[in-house]
Amino acid sequence: MNSARDSTERRDTHPADLADRLQGLPLEEAVRLLREMPAGKASAVLSEMDSETAAQIARHLEPPLLRTLLQAVSPQQVADIVGRLPEELRSVVLESLSPIESSRVSDLLRYPEDSAGGIMNDRFIALPADITIGDCLARLHEREEEFPQGALYLYVLDADRKLTGVVPVRDLVFRKPNRPLRDIVKTEVVSLRVDDDQEKVADLFSKYHFMALPVLERDGRLVGVVEANRVISVIQNEATEDMQKMAGLSGEEHAYTPWTAAFSGRMTWLLLNLGTAFAAGYVISLFESTIARWTALAFFLPIIAGQGGVVGIQTMTLIIRGMVLGELPLDQAKKALRKELTLGVLNGVIIGLLTGLGGWLWQGNFMLGVVVGAGMLLNMMAAALSGVLVPIGLRRLKIDPALASSIFVTTITDIAGFFFFLGIAALCLRLFG
Amino acid sequence: MNSARDSTERRDTHPADLADRLQGLPLEEAVRLLREMPAGKASAVLSEMDSETAAQIARHLEPPLLRTLLQAVSPQQVADIVGRLPEELRSVVLESLSPIESSRVSDLLRYPEDSAGGIMNDRFIALPADITIGDCLARLHEREEEFPQGALYLYVLDADRKLTGVVPVRDLVFRKPNRPLRDIVKTEVVSLRVDDDQEKVADLFSKYHFMALPVLERDGRLVGVVEANRVISVIQNEATEDMQKMAGLSGEEHAYTPWTAAFSGRMTWLLLNLGTAFAAGYVISLFESTIARWTALAFFLPIIAGQGGVVGIQTMTLIIRGMVLGELPLDQAKKALRKELTLGVLNGVIIGLLTGLGGWLWQGNFMLGVVVGAGMLLNMMAAALSGVLVPIGLRRLKIDPALASSIFVTTITDIAGFFFFLGIAALCLRLFG
Repeated sequence: MNSARDSTERRDTHPADLADRLQGLPLEEAVRLLREMPAGKASAVLSEMDSETAAQIARHLEPPLLRTLLQAVSPQQVADIVGRLPEELRSVVLESLSPIESSRVSDLLRYPEDSAGGIMNDRFIALPADITIGDCLARLHEREEEFPQGALYLYVLDADRKLTGVVPVRDLVFRKPNRPLRDIVKTEVVSLRVDDDQEKVADLFSKYHFMALPVLERDGRLVGVVEANRVISVIQNEATEDMQKMAGLSGEEHAYTPWTAAFSGRMTWLLLNLGTAFAAGYVISLFESTIARWTALAFFLPIIAGQGGVVGIQTMTLIIRGMVLGELPLDQAKKALRKELTLGVLNGVIIGLLTGLGGWLWQGNFMLGVVVGAGMLLNMMAAALSGVLVPIGLRRLKIDPALASSIFVTTITDIAGFFFFLGIAALCLRLFG
Repeated sequence: MNSARDSTERRDTHPADLADRLQGLPLEEAVRLLREMPAGKASAVLSEMDSETAAQIARHLEPPLLRTLLQAVSPQQVADIVGRLPEELRSVVLESLSPIESSRVSDLLRYPEDSAGGIMNDRFIALPADITIGDCLARLHEREEEFPQGALYLYVLDADRKLTGVVPVRDLVFRKPNRPLRDIVKTEVVSLRVDDDQEKVADLFSKYHFMALPVLERDGRLVGVVEANRVISVIQNEATEDMQKMAGLSGEEHAYTPWTAAFSGRMTWLLLNLGTAFAAGYVISLFESTIARWTALAFFLPIIAGQGGVVGIQTMTLIIRGMVLGELPLDQAKKALRKELTLGVLNGVIIGLLTGLGGWLWQGNFMLGVVVGAGMLLNMMAAALSGVLVPIGLRRLKIDPALASSIFVTTITDIAGFFFFLGIAALCLRLFG
């Protein structure tokens, strides 16, 4: 018997661990190692890789080898990989599969990869309602190899293949063969639609603790099942993507991704940020004569920008996460806005007073303290406001808030912060200077 | 039959939805509403709340009412709630439960809440190996109510309650009663230890796609089972916590948390950041005479700090996420450091050149361009270095990298960036000014 500890020690032999190792290698090296493995192992390793890497490797394999490897991979995973291949290679692969396999993969390819249809398993056991439990068992015996160990439910369909109920496998254990199957069918079934977003699917599983949910076509036909273990990967990947997008990384980059693959995405983000940083610098340059007369103002630029950024990012993170977890319907969003503004004003007053006091004592200049404090207060209110409104606005515009919020929020807090702070300073100089 | 759509429309009736709503209300209001519900419903709602809120509410309920409500909640959830109560209230609640219930909850309370023992379900069906399948069925019949619909495995124990194998429920469906149970037992079982960290548990489920794993005491006795649907909540919560900690929020805050509960945590973070921002301001003040002679330097302060911050946060996010996903054993960490430094130098050269060129053209001063470009290059290398070393160093010191990395990284990039940039400027003024 293996303990979890053993499974860590077996790092080199489990396909999932081999997949991890191959993903950390340069592409050519990974392709070479995969070619050297026995086909069965190579196939298992391919199916454990993230589909992006698997697709990149697939492009470098000869079609006959690729075909051999994909034969042992589930249609769900073949679809994930094939969906990322260029059109012509995709047709070659599809034609090389058996007709049944090929049509199953084509069916799955119709659904976007981030929908319930895209993450469902198309293998499930379907039964008609009007049979006895004995008939049901006989059918299961015939199709024993299609009946996976992890199956929790059998699905009962009507003549149009519409779902009418489920039978927990557990209940079959206590069956009396001559009773109609109908007696043990549960008809209250929560189900997904093929076009449900995977974020919504994750939310349903997380909230209601399901182990498996059936997936229906728009017309009510049962076409697949989403299981909890698949949702785990979906949630891990979504969380990784959101976290990384918020920092301006691609959702697919990993610590082990070669720098060549990471370079262009990171550079794009840096260039975008460079543009906004120059805009903030330009705002400062508008107050050149003010700073020339009052150099100490420059010491407070990072303090203003830093605190504004912290408040903006805090608020934005909470709102984005709330939206992902489905905690922010419209009425809650208004409440969240009120909460963030309350905190913005309160924190602004306290941090403004402290910063002002700090500025006064440090530089021995009371007016500088007033300018810094007032600038900080206004900046923190702007930060709280933009931290709520930017992600909510982006969602309305159908732009992924995780992807674009942070650059807007930090730009707004930098520009607003410098403008308020230096503007007040200029005004003071004009009035009292 | 309900579609997923219906389950959204039933927002007001499902206990999980009611729990969500109550969590968005002030505590007194939530307690009042819970008191007004029928006991069965109130109990279900309590068990759907996050345990922190449930514990807060529990403190405001009279012990007899609390006792009634907790009777219908699983020992696992009672332990989660009771573990957050003050010692004396904890004893009151434990004494009010039935002796069996109380001892199960006490057993569960021995495990830290973020360990396999803390998230496991203590209900499972255990069987001896030396019985026939017929005996096994007879026993299951006797204990039918303990046999949950979602059960995938039965667990086979030896005389010392040590796990020797599992029986997939599915295999019982095809049983022949006179055969020994041993014939359908799987003895290759991956298992968890009670003290395995929940992050490691999540990692195992995510990587190897388990639906359920048995949990063993240090001496090998089976004490519980972790199921995939529970791991989903664990992963959602861990991701939320990591994301929020990185932004300086508490892991428990939600968009709907009242501002009064959010205030002190946020203020602590703002004060910490204010301290580091003043440190960065102090570094600038060391170059007061340089800025007084060359005001345009001030325009570039947010550009230097901004780009350094972006690179530092990108690198840090990737490393922290990689550590959470278990992708960064020591040899990979060295590789990641090399990758980030390569990117740091390369991006530094490109962004340094662009910033320098921008500075030269904007201000019409070639030397300013050189100063800005060189400062940027050094800053971005420092940012990449700190983005890798800070989270890895914190983990070595057993400090949660998600919690403390961002403040260190931004402080380092701000201070190093200003020091390099203004230092080079001061040097240039001395040499050529």
